[in-house]
Amino acid sequence: MHRSPKLLLSLSLLFCINIAQAAELTLVRFGQPGMERPGLIDDQGQIRDLSGFVEDITPSQLSDESLQRIASIPLDQLPAVRGEQRLAAPVNGVRKIIAIGFNYIDHAAEMAVEVPTEPLVFMKAITALANPSDPIISPRSATKLDYESELVVVIGKKAKYVSVEEALDHVAGYTTGNDVSERAFQRERGGQFVKGKSADSFAPFGPHLVSRDSIDDIQNLQIWSEVNGQIRQNGNTNQMVFGVAEIVSYLSQFMTLEPGDLIYTGTPEGVGDGMNPPQYLQPGDSVRVGIDGLGEIQQRVVASE
Amino acid sequence: MHRSPKLLLSLSLLFCINIAQAAELTLVRFGQPGMERPGLIDDQGQIRDLSGFVEDITPSQLSDESLQRIASIPLDQLPAVRGEQRLAAPVNGVRKIIAIGFNYIDHAAEMAVEVPTEPLVFMKAITALANPSDPIISPRSATKLDYESELVVVIGKKAKYVSVEEALDHVAGYTTGNDVSERAFQRERGGQFVKGKSADSFAPFGPHLVSRDSIDDIQNLQIWSEVNGQIRQNGNTNQMVFGVAEIVSYLSQFMTLEPGDLIYTGTPEGVGDGMNPPQYLQPGDSVRVGIDGLGEIQQRVVASE
Repeated sequence: MHRSPKLLLSLSLLFCINIAQAAELTLVRFGQPGMERPGLIDDQGQIRDLSGFVEDITPSQLSDESLQRIASIPLDQLPAVRGEQRLAAPVNGVRKIIAIGFNYIDHAAEMAVEVPTEPLVFMKAITALANPSDPIISPRSATKLDYESELVVVIGKKAKYVSVEEALDHVAGYTTGNDVSERAFQRERGGQFVKGKSADSFAPFGPHLVSRDSIDDIQNLQIWSEVNGQIRQNGNTNQMVFGVAEIVSYLSQFMTLEPGDLIYTGTPEGVGDGMNPPQYLQPGDSVRVGIDGLGEIQQRVVASE
Repeated sequence: MHRSPKLLLSLSLLFCINIAQAAELTLVRFGQPGMERPGLIDDQGQIRDLSGFVEDITPSQLSDESLQRIASIPLDQLPAVRGEQRLAAPVNGVRKIIAIGFNYIDHAAEMAVEVPTEPLVFMKAITALANPSDPIISPRSATKLDYESELVVVIGKKAKYVSVEEALDHVAGYTTGNDVSERAFQRERGGQFVKGKSADSFAPFGPHLVSRDSIDDIQNLQIWSEVNGQIRQNGNTNQMVFGVAEIVSYLSQFMTLEPGDLIYTGTPEGVGDGMNPPQYLQPGDSVRVGIDGLGEIQQRVVASE
């Protein structure tokens, strides 16, 4: 008897709702630009093709129910993907990029600012979104281009006036991001950070979207960066001034968070701007940022056309 | 002989490209929430239904070519829409809301800040977008809710590193906006404006999208606001510190502007926060903002659930 994958999925879904199974998943989007397919990474580190079950990884696929549905698909229904694959940003259709400034005590110190008493919030333009496989583009008049390795929270469920206790229920998962910054634009051009945080390519994230349930303690992960093979940042998310749950709850008092929204949660000590003398990124540099358990991004810096 | 509207449109389009006709248009979206149809306002102030020619007013409809195509449709091909109509935000699918702070000399003075030497840029969360027919929602912990009547620029063509001279070629048109603000969130909660500018309903715009070619001098329009029938702001866009062309060119050095992006260009003197003593908005208040030639928005303030 032939049973379709869709029928199997429905049966599995019923089962998984009954047992309220945690969704432990690492999602990716793989393939050539504009042709990406959804996939998951299995226990052997192999990409499995999800395109028979899910059209794409979009904000509407980030609910607990949807993630549980995907986690319940028997692995033998998901073709293994052979060969080297380009990995794209793991969510398509992000609408908002929020970021938290000076959220690691040692980074506030190196930037010679007070540790914030409330989360310092800024935004990055949506046009700054980039794939982890894209280059970092140095803007035409850049003089102080810099990296910031960051834990990125991906919202899974609408959040509005949520408490700290409820906050993580609204998180789909986590990924790695580089909050690329131009320090002269950020500080020396009149007022607000957004100017130095919004150029095209300044918000790469991915390549792995690791579901919330896959991480034992999001506030205890090593977070690091490297420029041309030299280690620059080496911190831990336990040094965050405001943790993920506090940030999500706090932001939800000021704006509605939607599925697919990204929150860059701040960077530890060791940015180029904090070095003595400062060492800014130049075209040709190779930049890696990573978080243990969440993967890493490696990019090259190129000059803008 | 039957000739379809599409054929007529193609013929008119050819003609209009030949003579490079200016597109003088006032576009609207009318109808019930989620069922809005595109329309234009004719010389008699009558809504004409565009839905036979255009599915919706989206970013891809904002190019010069698209606006010229719409302007070339013979009016007798567009059914007049009878009866009172709800008017929605005139563009569906906006991705970015940028705003300029302290951009009128007298407003900087009333806020006791220096006149900026470069445009002060901040962003509003995309979830703040609202229709001109929606209420202004006072957030749960709001104590200093305020209005700002603003000229809103709607981008029509991608802008990246454009000069002041080229800048207006990238503008589709203009509309009216209220840069609704919570002053305590904006100033007293740690750092960046975005916190006080991003609550749901804080970015109403519309109802008219007036094409660039319809306005003789965008830097000479009266701009005003009224609370409960009392005039509060009464300025002119000739008082802007940085004009529209300068703003578009300036922003395009820091980020790519896309069709459908909104730029709130700052507000003249007379906000509630600048009064002595300050007079903030309260649930039940009626707020009108308007710009001569661009229409007006009238909204009521309600408390958040």
